[in-house]
Amino acid sequence: MNMKIKWLREKLNGLNLDGMIISNPVNIRYLTGINAEGTLVITRKENVYITDGRYIEIAQTAVTIDDEILILDSRTMTSGDYENYFIFCENVGFEEKYVTYENYKKLMHMYKINNLVETEGILENQRMIKDEEEISKIKKACEITDNCFEYLQKTIKKGMTEKEIAFMIQKYFLLNRAEKLAFDSIVASGENSSLPHAEPTDRKIESGDIITIDFGCVYEGYHSDMTRTIFVDYVKDIYKPVYDLVLKNQMQTMKELKDGVAIKMFSKLVENDFKLKGYDMIHGLGHGVGLNIHELPVLNTKSEFMLKENMVVTNEPGIYIPGDFGVRIEDTVQIAKYSSIQLTNSGKNYIII
Amino acid sequence: MNMKIKWLREKLNGLNLDGMIISNPVNIRYLTGINAEGTLVITRKENVYITDGRYIEIAQTAVTIDDEILILDSRTMTSGDYENYFIFCENVGFEEKYVTYENYKKLMHMYKINNLVETEGILENQRMIKDEEEISKIKKACEITDNCFEYLQKTIKKGMTEKEIAFMIQKYFLLNRAEKLAFDSIVASGENSSLPHAEPTDRKIESGDIITIDFGCVYEGYHSDMTRTIFVDYVKDIYKPVYDLVLKNQMQTMKELKDGVAIKMFSKLVENDFKLKGYDMIHGLGHGVGLNIHELPVLNTKSEFMLKENMVVTNEPGIYIPGDFGVRIEDTVQIAKYSSIQLTNSGKNYIII
Repeated sequence: MNMKIKWLREKLNGLNLDGMIISNPVNIRYLTGINAEGTLVITRKENVYITDGRYIEIAQTAVTIDDEILILDSRTMTSGDYENYFIFCENVGFEEKYVTYENYKKLMHMYKINNLVETEGILENQRMIKDEEEISKIKKACEITDNCFEYLQKTIKKGMTEKEIAFMIQKYFLLNRAEKLAFDSIVASGENSSLPHAEPTDRKIESGDIITIDFGCVYEGYHSDMTRTIFVDYVKDIYKPVYDLVLKNQMQTMKELKDGVAIKMFSKLVENDFKLKGYDMIHGLGHGVGLNIHELPVLNTKSEFMLKENMVVTNEPGIYIPGDFGVRIEDTVQIAKYSSIQLTNSGKNYIII
Repeated sequence: MNMKIKWLREKLNGLNLDGMIISNPVNIRYLTGINAEGTLVITRKENVYITDGRYIEIAQTAVTIDDEILILDSRTMTSGDYENYFIFCENVGFEEKYVTYENYKKLMHMYKINNLVETEGILENQRMIKDEEEISKIKKACEITDNCFEYLQKTIKKGMTEKEIAFMIQKYFLLNRAEKLAFDSIVASGENSSLPHAEPTDRKIESGDIITIDFGCVYEGYHSDMTRTIFVDYVKDIYKPVYDLVLKNQMQTMKELKDGVAIKMFSKLVENDFKLKGYDMIHGLGHGVGLNIHELPVLNTKSEFMLKENMVVTNEPGIYIPGDFGVRIEDTVQIAKYSSIQLTNSGKNYIII
């Protein structure tokens, strides 16, 4: 049997669950490799993936006989088929973090389940720790991202618009073996950089500009995430102390990142250092990265998570001065036993184009 | 007060609800124009949008004083603030189609609500009927899509890969005032066209190919959706009867689309006609289009909806022969009182490039 499903079955046993209904396509992809829309049903006896005509071929080619996953077409199924999966079962797990309240009620009705039980994000929690294959895919996505940034430094010219730069990023990724963008790229220049989530506009790049570029790509399902704040022709004096402060904290955090450290702790250090200089930390310090661009753990001052070996997270402090400008510096980082391994490796000293 | 919120308040009154918590960002954008992450709380006395530091500026610029929406930063709020919103209230609505089971429990706890009540998709249902402004935005998205298709017919050449064509679509949209792609474009050539949801590959276009191109863009938040199946150099004889059958049904359906018609009825007609010729209908006939690419109503043989004036839906029958080829033809259509108005208008006779 597929090793990840084997792990899940042991986990379900430990939780005294007779099975689980998995609805989140990302969790299904994690467990099976199937990248489609459907439901994975783990019953006492079998593993069943139920999909519809649009995805049958995709699902069938994604699994091998060793996975022991039965692929079924929902059109051929009766209400009795669903009811039989958990007959004589007491507790069946579901994904309370993904399933809507409406679908929770539907599942209960459809599968005639006595007790549909929250699984407290077992799959999302497990996904935090990446295996070798997952890390190698994230590394590849990060490598393409670094190369893209090198290309951008050579290609961005005054007079180009933010939208054009965002488009160059996309083009680079598609022509360089990335599946797609990890998210809509942020290219925020001049005063636009004061919005941490700015959408690219038609504003043209000028001499003296500060530009925040937050971008990443997907390689075989896995994401990268990097931000660099760069300067055009020269660095205005007002930008320097803010850039230096963000960079200092980003590098300091990099040293804190290792197995066994409480996320809350080093997030608080950054918040305090920003406050000392009169700046608020208006967003968290980072997030897990994997099959989703944002996944567990959350890195902020309220997080109850500890870092663990082979988590992959972002380290992205930022300072934003409303209506004026902003600075963010971000890397994707693998947590190791006694240190961290930076997976995006573009330079971080003043980058002047 | 904002007219859409005024409508919602009347609706809530009719449902005997003392207020509503709106979590779905698309519903919030529909009601307020705010395109961000946050929660809209409709209390007896006021309309409050709660967001965080990342989106405060965006939210503030999206609303005017006439909207009567108070924008609050969640960092400045205490647990007492949340509890006070619905103090002495009995029934408060929520979006059971969007809120996860986990968040349903969190909302109840956070706002200390006695009775958190399902609102049966009032907002999703209301969004089915588009107003003039919404339709003009969808029309604009459709117009850009038609123009893109004209460009594609001139530009696609033998030897190009599916990925390159998908990329050309993206480039065209971005350079022609579309915000972004409505969804990842499908460019499926030769045998790849037998997968209705194929991802573009490195397969090169050859003479004699059939190519299914399913694409659309977003204009000021509103989507377009169009599919054309085209041919390279000539139309192989095996493709013709399938293409003709799909086109006949697409045109026939276009005539059926008007206010007051049961969706089930004309969907069944297509299914039957396909069956008569030995083909299965493996996906629905269409879907609503608006702020989401897929929204209500669903167009298939199980749908209980009737068409209503100013719904905007797709009409997209398709036939797929596994491992061999597929044909789909799709337009975005506005429902009118006595007919339908096709919003995408590219040609549908054999298109040979």
